Amino acid sequence: MIVAEMSITPIGEGTSVSKYVKAAIKYLKENGVKFQTNPMSTVIEVEDLETLFNVVKKAHEAVLEAGAKRLITDLKIDDRRDKEITIESKLKAIR
Amino acid sequence: MIVAEMSITPIGEGTSVSKYVKAAIKYLKENGVKFQTNPMSTVIEVEDLETLFNVVKKAHEAVLEAGAKRLITDLKIDDRRDKEITIESKLKAIR
Amino acid sequence: MIVAEMSITPIGEGTSVSKYVKAAIKYLKENGVKFQTNPMSTVIEVEDLETLFNVVKKAHEAVLEAGAKRLITDLKIDDRRDKEITIESKLKAIR
Amino acid sequence: MIVAEMSITPIGEGTSVSKYVKAAIKYLKENGVKFQTNPMSTVIEVEDLETLFNVVKKAHEAVLEAGAKRLITDLKIDDRRDKEITIESKLKAIR
Repeated sequence: MIVAEMSITPIGEGTSVSKYVKAAIKYLKENGVKFQTNPMSTVIEVEDLETLFNVVKKAHEAVLEAGAKRLITDLKIDDRRDKEITIESKLKAIR
Repeated sequence: MIVAEMSITPIGEGTSVSKYVKAAIKYLKENGVKFQTNPMSTVIEVEDLETLFNVVKKAHEAVLEAGAKRLITDLKIDDRRDKEITIESKLKAIR
Repeated sequence: MIVAEMSITPIGEGTSVSKYVKAAIKYLKENGVKFQTNPMSTVIEVEDLETLFNVVKKAHEAVLEAGAKRLITDLKIDDRRDKEITIESKLKAIR
Repeated sequence: MIVAEMSITPIGEGTSVSKYVKAAIKYLKENGVKFQTNPMSTVIEVEDLETLFNVVKKAHEAVLEAGAKRLITDLKIDDRRDKEITIESKLKAIR
């Protein structure tokens, strides 16, 4: 699996942007994506790179559709090929 | 408060790096820093910028002391001045 | 246009990783992608999100093909819809 | 030396934020910091971690003083201890 971290930040819609972040989370929920939110970003677990980029694209587009005129979207991908990683295995490893 | 997200990645110590991440977390725990780990990073809440940079410096140094020869440390800071933010307020806003 | 910043970091291939970074840059060059390298990342300018994600996927895969077993890939996207942005317009704006 | 990448993004000051970015760059220039701007971020080369965090703190504060009410500041640090790195050595390595 691929574990990644995404944050989508609207620039120019005022200092309160949770309405826009919620639009991205709504997309993840309604499309059965495995994810965890935290105070700074959303962690996603997906099967492969193609799925990941499709999910990020759709979440980004959901925030544009909510009315944002400029977005800074950050993505950090952890792609490990010598061993299977998941949200759970990564959390367990640092406990 | 300032809410920030930190990740410290050793380059060149093999593909398994949890031993090094644990050295940073140990520093946070032993020094009473308010933090939350997630599968991709650690979220920190501190009083001000000076405290934040001191905490990140010490956590980074703890990973060097654990033996890492090269580190990529990522930091994302959310500094809001028109309204108080905390780990809890940020989580609540997106629910 | 979309302007984005990408960095691909192999974990576990030693502290010197330029061989891997060059594999990603080679892909960009050979495929006519508009890009600029800097000491920390590569800035890319593309037509749309779909092109961007395809380019990042291919560059990431080029580094895997070069032999890396674990990659941390960072991507920051600037997607502005109220005004056209390019690598040049962004540089000019801060001069 | 430590090579790092910094970006400071005001949230809630409209979609055009170059005025704020310029305040950070002005600080770097007037204080003799070695840096290079690119379309997505500013690369900094400094002697040590303490200098780095001081520079980032001052640049961040310069943007607050320019009137921004909320800032997302991103920092990526490359700290290599087995070999000296500089802006120039990193650029040369990927050519």
